[in-house]
Amino acid sequence: MLKIIKIGGKLIEDAELLSKLCDSLVKFYPNFVLVHGGGSMAAELAGSLGVETRMHEGRRITDAKTLEIATMTYAGLANKRLVAALQVRGVNACGLSGCDMNVVVSHKREVKDIDWGYVGDVDAVGTKAIGMLLDAGVVPVISPITFSLQDGLLNTNADSVASAVAVAMSKQRQTECIFCFDKPGVLLDVNDNNSLIPQINRETYARLSAEKKIFSGMLPKLDNAFKMIGSGVERVRLTNPDNLDSGTVIIK
Amino acid sequence: MLKIIKIGGKLIEDAELLSKLCDSLVKFYPNFVLVHGGGSMAAELAGSLGVETRMHEGRRITDAKTLEIATMTYAGLANKRLVAALQVRGVNACGLSGCDMNVVVSHKREVKDIDWGYVGDVDAVGTKAIGMLLDAGVVPVISPITFSLQDGLLNTNADSVASAVAVAMSKQRQTECIFCFDKPGVLLDVNDNNSLIPQINRETYARLSAEKKIFSGMLPKLDNAFKMIGSGVERVRLTNPDNLDSGTVIIK
Repeated sequence: MLKIIKIGGKLIEDAELLSKLCDSLVKFYPNFVLVHGGGSMAAELAGSLGVETRMHEGRRITDAKTLEIATMTYAGLANKRLVAALQVRGVNACGLSGCDMNVVVSHKREVKDIDWGYVGDVDAVGTKAIGMLLDAGVVPVISPITFSLQDGLLNTNADSVASAVAVAMSKQRQTECIFCFDKPGVLLDVNDNNSLIPQINRETYARLSAEKKIFSGMLPKLDNAFKMIGSGVERVRLTNPDNLDSGTVIIK
Repeated sequence: MLKIIKIGGKLIEDAELLSKLCDSLVKFYPNFVLVHGGGSMAAELAGSLGVETRMHEGRRITDAKTLEIATMTYAGLANKRLVAALQVRGVNACGLSGCDMNVVVSHKREVKDIDWGYVGDVDAVGTKAIGMLLDAGVVPVISPITFSLQDGLLNTNADSVASAVAVAMSKQRQTECIFCFDKPGVLLDVNDNNSLIPQINRETYARLSAEKKIFSGMLPKLDNAFKMIGSGVERVRLTNPDNLDSGTVIIK
Protein backbone atom coordinates (compact mmCIF):
# COMPACT_ATOMS: atom_id res chain seq x y z
CA MET A 1 0.00 0.00 0.00
CA LEU A 2 1.27 3.48 -0.92
CA LYS A 3 1.76 5.68 2.14
CA ILE A 4 1.47 9.44 2.02
CA ILE A 5 3.21 10.60 5.18
CA LYS A 6 2.82 14.13 6.46
CA ILE A 7 5.35 15.39 8.96
CA GLY A 8 5.57 18.70 10.75
CA GLY A 9 8.38 21.16 10.60
CA LYS A 10 9.56 20.61 14.16
CA LEU A 11 11.09 17.29 13.10
CA ILE A 12 13.28 18.92 10.52
CA GLU A 13 14.68 21.47 12.93
CA ASP A 14 15.72 18.81 15.41
CA ALA A 15 18.57 16.73 13.97
CA GLU A 16 17.95 13.84 16.38
CA LEU A 17 14.20 13.60 15.69
CA LEU A 18 14.83 13.88 11.96
CA SER A 19 17.36 11.09 12.14
CA LYS A 20 14.94 8.83 14.05
CA LEU A 21 12.11 9.55 11.66
CA CYS A 22 14.21 8.81 8.57
CA ASP A 23 15.41 5.55 10.14
CA SER A 24 11.81 4.46 10.55
CA LEU A 25 10.85 5.51 7.01
CA VAL A 26 13.35 3.16 5.37
CA LYS A 27 11.04 0.14 5.77
CA PHE A 28 8.36 1.80 3.62
CA TYR A 29 10.80 2.40 0.74
CA PRO A 30 10.03 2.70 -2.18
CA ASN A 31 6.33 2.91 -1.48
CA PHE A 32 5.85 6.27 0.14
CA VAL A 33 5.55 9.99 -0.45
CA LEU A 34 6.63 12.48 2.19
CA VAL A 35 4.84 15.82 2.62
CA HIS A 36 6.40 18.27 5.03
CA GLY A 37 5.80 21.63 6.61
CA GLY A 38 8.48 24.02 7.73
CA GLY A 39 7.48 24.46 11.34
CA SER A 40 8.89 27.54 12.97
CA MET A 41 11.74 27.85 10.45
CA ALA A 42 9.93 30.50 8.44
CA ALA A 43 8.84 32.45 11.53
CA GLU A 44 12.39 32.34 12.85
CA LEU A 45 13.89 33.58 9.61
CA ALA A 46 11.22 36.29 9.43
CA GLY A 47 12.14 37.29 12.97
CA SER A 48 15.85 37.46 12.13
CA LEU A 49 15.08 39.60 9.09
CA GLY A 50 12.74 41.87 11.04
CA VAL A 51 9.77 40.87 8.87
CA GLU A 52 6.56 41.08 10.85
CA THR A 53 4.48 37.88 10.91
CA ARG A 54 0.86 38.95 10.50
CA MET A 55 -1.71 36.49 11.84
CA HIS A 56 -5.48 36.24 11.66
CA GLU A 57 -7.29 33.80 13.94
CA GLY A 58 -4.09 31.87 14.50
CA ARG A 59 -3.25 31.55 10.80
CA ARG A 60 -0.45 33.36 9.03
CA ILE A 61 -1.09 35.97 6.35
CA THR A 62 1.40 35.52 3.52
CA ASP A 63 2.58 38.80 2.01
CA ALA A 64 5.24 38.91 -0.75
CA LYS A 65 8.17 38.93 1.67
CA THR A 66 6.65 36.12 3.77
CA LEU A 67 6.19 34.04 0.60
CA GLU A 68 9.90 34.52 -0.23
CA ILE A 69 10.80 33.39 3.27
CA ALA A 70 8.47 30.38 3.05
CA THR A 71 9.96 29.43 -0.32
CA MET A 72 13.49 29.65 1.05
CA THR A 73 12.77 27.64 4.18
CA TYR A 74 10.18 25.07 3.00
CA ALA A 75 11.21 24.51 -0.65
CA GLY A 76 14.89 25.13 0.12
CA LEU A 77 16.30 24.26 3.50
CA ALA A 78 13.66 21.91 4.94
CA ASN A 79 13.11 20.04 1.69
CA LYS A 80 16.79 19.48 0.90
CA ARG A 81 17.63 18.49 4.47
CA LEU A 82 14.94 15.81 4.34
CA VAL A 83 16.05 14.51 0.94
CA ALA A 84 19.69 14.41 2.07
CA ALA A 85 18.74 12.55 5.26
CA LEU A 86 16.86 9.96 3.18
CA GLN A 87 19.64 9.57 0.61
CA VAL A 88 22.23 8.73 3.27
CA ARG A 89 19.90 5.87 4.30
CA GLY A 90 19.76 4.50 0.78
CA VAL A 91 16.30 5.92 0.08
CA ASN A 92 16.46 7.54 -3.35
CA ALA A 93 14.35 10.67 -2.90
CA CYS A 94 13.46 13.71 -4.96
CA GLY A 95 12.41 17.00 -3.41
CA LEU A 96 9.52 18.73 -5.12
CA SER A 97 7.49 21.87 -4.70
CA GLY A 98 4.16 22.42 -6.41
CA CYS A 99 5.71 24.04 -9.49
CA ASP A 100 8.03 21.08 -10.14
CA MET A 101 6.32 19.04 -12.86
CA ASN A 102 3.13 20.79 -11.65
CA VAL A 103 2.82 18.29 -8.81
CA VAL A 104 0.58 20.51 -6.69
CA VAL A 105 -1.38 23.12 -8.62
CA SER A 106 -3.44 25.58 -6.60
CA HIS A 107 -5.31 28.86 -6.93
CA LYS A 108 -4.87 31.96 -4.81
CA ARG A 109 -7.49 32.11 -2.10
CA GLU A 110 -10.20 34.62 -2.93
CA VAL A 111 -10.32 37.78 -0.84
CA LYS A 112 -13.50 37.81 1.24
CA ASP A 113 -13.46 39.17 4.79
CA ILE A 114 -9.73 38.79 4.95
CA ASP A 115 -6.93 38.85 2.38
CA TRP A 116 -4.70 35.87 3.16
CA GLY A 117 -2.16 37.04 0.59
CA TYR A 118 -0.14 34.45 -1.32
CA VAL A 119 -2.03 31.46 0.02
CA GLY A 120 -3.11 28.69 -2.31
CA ASP A 121 -5.90 26.14 -2.13
CA VAL A 122 -5.12 22.93 -4.00
CA ASP A 123 -6.86 22.25 -7.33
CA ALA A 124 -4.93 19.37 -8.84
CA VAL A 125 -2.12 16.91 -8.12
CA GLY A 126 0.35 15.68 -10.75
CA THR A 127 -0.32 11.99 -10.23
CA LYS A 128 1.45 11.06 -13.47
CA ALA A 129 4.70 12.69 -12.34
CA ILE A 130 4.44 11.25 -8.82
CA GLY A 131 3.67 7.81 -10.29
CA MET A 132 6.65 8.06 -12.65
CA LEU A 133 9.00 8.75 -9.75
CA LEU A 134 7.54 5.95 -7.58
CA ASP A 135 7.80 3.50 -10.49
CA ALA A 136 11.46 4.47 -10.85
CA GLY A 137 12.05 3.75 -7.15
CA VAL A 138 12.17 7.43 -6.22
CA VAL A 139 10.36 8.82 -3.17
CA PRO A 140 8.79 12.26 -3.77
CA VAL A 141 9.39 14.67 -0.87
CA ILE A 142 6.87 17.47 -1.28
CA SER A 143 7.05 20.95 0.26
CA PRO A 144 3.87 22.98 0.84
CA ILE A 145 4.86 25.65 -1.69
CA THR A 146 2.22 25.13 -4.36
CA PHE A 147 1.86 26.69 -7.78
CA SER A 148 -0.73 28.65 -9.71
CA LEU A 149 -0.29 29.43 -13.42
CA GLN A 150 -1.89 32.82 -12.77
CA ASP A 151 -0.36 33.77 -9.45
CA GLY A 152 2.91 31.83 -9.26
CA LEU A 153 4.22 30.28 -6.07
CA LEU A 154 1.74 30.08 -3.19
CA ASN A 155 1.94 29.01 0.43
CA THR A 156 -0.36 26.12 1.37
CA ASN A 157 -1.15 24.25 4.56
CA ALA A 158 0.91 21.04 4.54
CA ASP A 159 -2.01 18.93 5.86
CA SER A 160 -4.10 20.09 2.90
CA VAL A 161 -1.30 19.18 0.48
CA ALA A 162 -0.98 15.70 2.02
CA SER A 163 -4.75 15.16 1.87
CA ALA A 164 -4.94 16.25 -1.77
CA VAL A 165 -1.97 14.05 -2.75
CA ALA A 166 -3.47 11.03 -0.95
CA VAL A 167 -6.93 11.45 -2.52
CA ALA A 168 -5.44 11.93 -5.99
CA MET A 169 -3.03 8.98 -5.72
CA SER A 170 -5.83 6.74 -4.42
CA LYS A 171 -7.27 6.79 -7.97
CA GLN A 172 -4.25 4.77 -9.18
CA ARG A 173 -3.08 2.79 -6.14
CA GLN A 174 -4.28 1.66 -2.73
CA THR A 175 -3.35 4.55 -0.47
CA GLU A 176 -2.97 5.19 3.23
CA CYS A 177 -2.39 8.69 4.58
CA ILE A 178 -0.41 9.09 7.80
CA PHE A 179 -0.52 12.38 9.68
CA CYS A 180 2.26 12.71 12.24
CA PHE A 181 1.58 15.04 15.11
CA ASP A 182 2.57 15.43 18.75
CA LYS A 183 0.15 12.85 20.24
CA PRO A 184 0.27 9.06 19.86
CA GLY A 185 -3.17 9.22 18.18
CA VAL A 186 -6.75 10.09 19.06
CA LEU A 187 -7.12 10.06 22.83
CA LEU A 188 -10.26 9.75 24.98
CA ASP A 189 -8.42 11.78 27.60
CA VAL A 190 -6.06 14.31 26.04
CA ASN A 191 -3.81 14.12 29.13
CA ASP A 192 -3.55 10.34 29.13
CA ASN A 193 -1.56 8.71 26.35
CA ASN A 194 -2.95 5.33 27.46
CA SER A 195 -6.47 6.37 26.44
CA LEU A 196 -5.61 5.92 22.76
CA ILE A 197 -8.42 4.75 20.46
CA PRO A 198 -6.75 2.26 18.08
CA GLN A 199 -9.43 2.33 15.40
CA ILE A 200 -12.37 4.55 14.47
CA ASN A 201 -14.98 4.04 11.78
CA ARG A 202 -17.94 6.26 10.89
CA GLU A 203 -20.16 4.42 13.31
CA THR A 204 -17.85 4.62 16.34
CA TYR A 205 -17.03 8.24 15.42
CA ALA A 206 -20.74 9.18 15.48
CA ARG A 207 -21.18 7.48 18.84
CA LEU A 208 -18.04 8.95 20.45
CA SER A 209 -18.90 12.41 19.10
CA ALA A 210 -22.46 12.23 20.41
CA GLU A 211 -21.10 11.24 23.81
CA LYS A 212 -18.59 14.13 23.54
CA LYS A 213 -15.79 11.69 24.30
CA ILE A 214 -13.36 13.05 21.73
CA PHE A 215 -11.17 16.07 22.52
CA SER A 216 -12.58 18.92 20.42
CA GLY A 217 -9.14 19.78 18.97
CA MET A 218 -9.20 16.41 17.20
CA LEU A 219 -12.53 16.92 15.44
CA PRO A 220 -11.21 18.83 12.37
CA LYS A 221 -8.54 16.14 11.83
CA LEU A 222 -11.16 13.39 12.06
CA ASP A 223 -13.63 15.20 9.81
CA ASN A 224 -10.87 15.61 7.23
CA ALA A 225 -9.91 11.92 7.57
CA PHE A 226 -13.47 10.76 6.88
CA LYS A 227 -13.69 13.13 3.92
CA MET A 228 -10.52 11.53 2.49
CA ILE A 229 -11.91 8.05 3.03
CA GLY A 230 -15.09 9.08 1.27
CA SER A 231 -12.92 10.16 -1.66
CA GLY A 232 -11.03 6.91 -2.14
CA VAL A 233 -8.26 6.79 0.47
CA GLU A 234 -8.15 3.32 2.05
CA ARG A 235 -7.32 4.49 5.56
CA VAL A 236 -5.97 7.46 7.46
CA ARG A 237 -3.65 7.19 10.43
CA LEU A 238 -3.05 9.78 13.13
CA THR A 239 0.12 9.08 15.06
CA ASN A 240 3.36 10.53 16.29
CA PRO A 241 6.51 10.10 14.21
CA ASP A 242 7.95 7.55 16.64
CA ASN A 243 5.36 4.94 15.75
CA LEU A 244 4.33 5.15 12.15
CA ASP A 245 2.69 1.72 12.40
CA SER A 246 0.52 2.43 15.44
CA GLY A 247 -1.65 5.41 16.44
CA THR A 248 -5.31 5.69 15.54
CA VAL A 249 -6.46 4.18 12.26
CA ILE A 250 -9.52 5.73 10.64
CA ILE A 251 -11.43 3.45 8.28
CA LYS A 252 -14.81 3.48 6.52
CA MET B 1 21.05 18.41 -29.79
CA LEU B 2 20.68 18.55 -25.99
CA LYS B 3 21.62 21.95 -24.60
CA ILE B 4 22.99 22.40 -21.10
CA ILE B 5 22.49 26.09 -20.39
CA LYS B 6 24.20 27.79 -17.50
CA ILE B 7 22.85 31.12 -16.34
CA GLY B 8 24.07 33.43 -13.63
CA GLY B 9 22.14 34.59 -10.63
CA LYS B 10 21.74 38.20 -11.76
CA LEU B 11 19.10 37.08 -14.23
CA ILE B 12 16.93 35.58 -11.53
CA GLU B 13 16.98 38.71 -9.40
CA ASP B 14 15.81 40.89 -12.27
CA ALA B 15 12.21 40.02 -13.19
CA GLU B 16 12.50 41.60 -16.65
CA LEU B 17 15.72 39.78 -17.57
CA LEU B 18 14.32 36.51 -16.22
CA SER B 19 11.20 36.93 -18.31
CA LYS B 20 13.23 37.62 -21.49
CA LEU B 21 15.49 34.65 -20.87
CA CYS B 22 12.58 32.26 -20.30
CA ASP B 23 10.87 33.52 -23.47
CA SER B 24 13.98 32.62 -25.44
CA LEU B 25 14.34 29.19 -23.80
CA VAL B 26 10.93 28.00 -24.99
CA LYS B 27 12.27 27.16 -28.46
CA PHE B 28 14.72 24.62 -27.00
CA TYR B 29 11.95 22.74 -25.15
CA PRO B 30 12.04 19.85 -24.29
CA ASN B 31 15.69 19.43 -25.17
CA PHE B 32 17.54 21.40 -22.55
CA VAL B 33 18.78 21.41 -18.99
CA LEU B 34 19.15 24.64 -17.04
CA VAL B 35 21.92 25.09 -14.45
CA HIS B 36 21.78 28.27 -12.39
CA GLY B 37 23.74 30.14 -9.78
CA GLY B 38 22.25 32.41 -7.16
CA GLY B 39 24.14 35.59 -7.91
CA SER B 40 24.14 38.08 -5.09
CA MET B 41 20.99 36.61 -3.49
CA ALA B 42 22.99 34.66 -0.92
CA ALA B 43 25.31 37.56 -0.11
CA GLU B 44 22.31 39.85 0.30
CA LEU B 45 20.52 37.47 2.64
CA ALA B 46 23.75 36.97 4.58
CA GLY B 47 24.04 40.74 4.86
CA SER B 48 20.47 41.10 6.11
CA LEU B 49 21.10 38.39 8.69
CA GLY B 50 24.40 39.93 9.78
CA VAL B 51 26.31 36.82 8.68
CA GLU B 52 29.81 37.75 7.60
CA THR B 53 30.81 36.61 4.09
CA ARG B 54 34.38 35.35 4.33
CA MET B 55 36.33 35.41 1.10
CA HIS B 56 39.70 34.05 0.00
CA GLU B 57 41.17 35.24 -3.28
CA GLY B 58 37.79 36.39 -4.48
CA ARG B 59 36.02 33.11 -3.66
CA ARG B 60 33.56 32.60 -0.85
CA ILE B 61 34.29 30.35 2.12
CA THR B 62 31.17 28.35 3.00
CA ASP B 63 30.69 27.86 6.74
CA ALA B 64 27.62 26.08 8.16
CA LYS B 65 25.51 29.24 8.27
CA THR B 66 26.56 30.26 4.76
CA LEU B 67 25.61 26.79 3.48
CA GLU B 68 22.13 27.20 5.02
CA ILE B 69 21.80 30.56 3.30
CA ALA B 70 23.01 29.14 -0.02
CA THR B 71 20.54 26.26 0.28
CA MET B 72 17.66 28.64 0.98
CA THR B 73 18.48 31.01 -1.85
CA TYR B 74 19.82 28.68 -4.58
CA ALA B 75 17.84 25.46 -3.96
CA GLY B 76 14.80 27.38 -2.70
CA LEU B 77 14.04 30.83 -4.03
CA ALA B 78 16.14 30.98 -7.21
CA ASN B 79 15.31 27.42 -8.29
CA LYS B 80 11.55 27.70 -7.74
CA ARG B 81 11.32 31.13 -9.36
CA LEU B 82 12.98 29.72 -12.48
CA VAL B 83 10.76 26.65 -12.57
CA ALA B 84 7.62 28.78 -12.08
CA ALA B 85 8.72 31.16 -14.86
CA LEU B 86 9.19 28.20 -17.22
CA GLN B 87 5.88 26.55 -16.27
CA VAL B 88 3.86 29.68 -17.12
CA ARG B 89 5.41 29.46 -20.61
CA GLY B 90 4.30 25.85 -21.05
CA VAL B 91 7.75 24.40 -20.35
CA ASN B 92 7.27 21.53 -17.93
CA ALA B 93 10.26 21.87 -15.61
CA CYS B 94 11.50 20.20 -12.46
CA GLY B 95 13.83 21.91 -10.03
CA LEU B 96 16.61 19.74 -8.65
CA SER B 97 19.53 20.07 -6.28
CA GLY B 98 22.36 17.58 -6.15
CA CYS B 99 20.66 15.43 -3.49
CA ASP B 100 17.48 15.01 -5.54
CA MET B 101 17.80 11.57 -7.18
CA ASN B 102 21.57 12.06 -6.61
CA VAL B 103 21.77 14.18 -9.74
CA VAL B 104 25.01 15.90 -8.71
CA VAL B 105 27.15 13.97 -6.26
CA SER B 106 30.28 15.67 -4.95
CA HIS B 107 32.89 15.38 -2.24
CA LYS B 108 33.91 18.03 0.24
CA ARG B 109 37.02 19.83 -0.91
CA GLU B 110 40.08 18.67 1.00
CA VAL B 111 41.62 21.15 3.42
CA LYS B 112 45.07 22.16 2.18
CA ASP B 113 46.30 25.74 2.56
CA ILE B 114 42.77 26.93 3.07
CA ASP B 115 39.59 25.37 4.44
CA TRP B 116 36.83 26.25 1.98
CA GLY B 117 34.23 24.80 4.31
CA TYR B 118 31.11 23.15 2.85
CA VAL B 119 32.29 23.32 -0.73
CA GLY B 120 31.92 20.33 -3.03
CA ASP B 121 33.78 19.24 -6.14
CA VAL B 122 31.66 17.15 -8.49
CA ASP B 123 32.26 13.38 -8.69
CA ALA B 124 29.25 12.03 -10.57
CA VAL B 125 26.11 13.11 -12.39
CA GLY B 126 22.81 11.18 -12.30
CA THR B 127 22.47 10.83 -16.05
CA LYS B 128 19.77 8.15 -15.71
CA ALA B 129 17.53 10.47 -13.67
CA ILE B 130 18.18 13.44 -15.96
CA GLY B 131 17.51 11.22 -18.99
CA MET B 132 14.26 9.94 -17.46
CA LEU B 133 12.99 13.50 -16.98
CA LEU B 134 14.01 14.60 -20.49
CA ASP B 135 12.36 11.52 -22.00
CA ALA B 136 9.18 12.47 -20.12
CA GLY B 137 9.30 15.98 -21.60
CA VAL B 138 10.51 17.52 -18.34
CA VAL B 139 13.33 20.09 -18.23
CA PRO B 140 15.67 19.66 -15.25
CA VAL B 141 16.53 22.98 -13.56
CA ILE B 142 19.61 22.34 -11.44
CA SER B 143 20.84 24.45 -8.52
CA PRO B 144 24.52 24.38 -7.51
CA ILE B 145 23.79 22.77 -4.13
CA THR B 146 25.43 19.39 -4.58
CA PHE B 147 25.42 16.34 -2.33
CA SER B 148 27.94 14.09 -0.63
CA LEU B 149 26.89 10.88 1.12
CA GLN B 150 29.53 11.61 3.75
CA ASP B 151 29.19 15.35 4.19
CA GLY B 152 25.65 16.16 3.10
CA LEU B 153 24.73 19.28 1.17
CA LEU B 154 27.65 21.20 -0.35
CA ASN B 155 28.00 24.47 -2.21
CA THR B 156 29.49 24.17 -5.70
CA ASN B 157 30.43 26.58 -8.44
CA ALA B 158 27.56 26.62 -10.97
CA ASP B 159 29.94 26.63 -13.97
CA SER B 160 31.52 23.42 -12.64
CA VAL B 161 28.06 21.83 -12.22
CA ALA B 162 27.11 22.76 -15.80
CA SER B 163 30.41 21.39 -17.17
CA ALA B 164 30.02 18.12 -15.29
CA VAL B 165 26.39 17.69 -16.39
CA ALA B 166 27.31 18.40 -20.02
CA VAL B 167 30.25 15.99 -20.06
CA ALA B 168 28.19 13.25 -18.38
CA MET B 169 25.15 13.69 -20.63
CA SER B 170 27.37 13.68 -23.74
CA LYS B 171 27.86 9.94 -23.13
CA GLN B 172 24.19 9.36 -24.01
CA ARG B 173 23.25 12.21 -26.37
CA GLN B 174 24.86 14.86 -28.56
CA THR B 175 25.37 17.76 -26.20
CA GLU B 176 26.09 21.44 -26.44
CA CYS B 177 26.94 23.50 -23.37
CA ILE B 178 26.01 27.18 -23.34
CA PHE B 179 27.54 29.50 -20.75
CA CYS B 180 25.69 32.78 -20.41
CA PHE B 181 27.72 35.69 -19.13
CA ASP B 182 27.79 39.46 -19.45
CA LYS B 183 29.61 39.68 -22.82
CA PRO B 184 28.28 38.70 -26.25
CA GLY B 185 31.08 36.10 -26.50
CA VAL B 186 34.89 36.01 -26.77
CA LEU B 187 36.11 39.43 -27.84
CA LEU B 188 39.42 40.42 -29.43
CA ASP B 189 38.98 43.80 -27.74
CA VAL B 190 37.18 43.49 -24.41
CA ASN B 191 35.81 47.02 -24.85
CA ASP B 192 34.43 46.46 -28.33
CA ASN B 193 31.43 44.16 -28.68
CA ASN B 194 31.96 44.18 -32.45
CA SER B 195 35.28 42.36 -32.05
CA LEU B 196 33.47 39.06 -31.36
CA ILE B 197 35.16 35.87 -32.53
CA PRO B 198 32.30 33.69 -33.86
CA GLN B 199 34.16 30.38 -33.77
CA ILE B 200 37.31 29.02 -32.15
CA ASN B 201 38.90 25.61 -32.55
CA ARG B 202 42.10 24.27 -30.97
CA GLU B 203 44.17 25.57 -33.82
CA THR B 204 42.83 29.12 -33.84
CA TYR B 205 42.93 29.15 -30.02
CA ALA B 206 46.65 28.25 -30.05
CA ARG B 207 47.37 30.97 -32.57
CA LEU B 208 45.28 33.68 -30.86
CA SER B 209 46.81 32.76 -27.48
CA ALA B 210 50.36 32.90 -28.87
CA GLU B 211 49.61 36.32 -30.33
CA LYS B 212 48.10 37.32 -26.95
CA LYS B 213 44.98 38.46 -28.76
CA ILE B 214 42.51 37.02 -26.23
CA PHE B 215 41.61 38.95 -23.10
CA SER B 216 43.25 37.07 -20.23
CA GLY B 217 40.00 36.92 -18.24
CA MET B 218 38.61 34.64 -20.96
CA LEU B 219 41.39 32.07 -20.83
CA PRO B 220 40.00 29.94 -17.94
CA LYS B 221 36.61 29.76 -19.68
CA LEU B 222 38.24 28.70 -22.94
CA ASP B 223 40.54 26.16 -21.27
CA ASN B 224 37.49 24.65 -19.57
CA ALA B 225 35.58 24.61 -22.88
CA PHE B 226 38.37 22.69 -24.65
CA LYS B 227 38.55 20.26 -21.74
CA MET B 228 34.81 19.58 -22.11
CA ILE B 229 35.17 19.08 -25.85
CA GLY B 230 38.01 16.65 -25.20
CA SER B 231 35.60 14.75 -22.91
CA GLY B 232 32.78 14.29 -25.39
CA VAL B 233 30.80 17.55 -25.51
CA GLU B 234 30.05 18.45 -29.14
CA ARG B 235 30.48 22.20 -28.73
CA VAL B 236 30.57 24.91 -26.10
CA ARG B 237 29.07 28.34 -26.56
CA LEU B 238 29.94 31.50 -24.65
CA THR B 239 27.28 34.14 -25.03
CA ASN B 240 25.01 36.53 -23.21
CA PRO B 241 21.46 35.44 -22.37
CA ASP B 242 19.97 37.73 -25.03
CA ASN B 243 21.37 35.66 -27.88
CA LEU B 244 21.52 32.00 -27.01
CA ASP B 245 22.04 31.14 -30.67
CA SER B 246 24.99 33.45 -31.29
CA GLY B 247 28.14 34.25 -29.28
CA THR B 248 31.39 32.35 -29.65
CA VAL B 249 31.22 28.66 -30.51
CA ILE B 250 34.11 26.49 -29.37
CA ILE B 251 34.62 23.31 -31.37
CA LYS B 252 37.33 20.65 -31.68
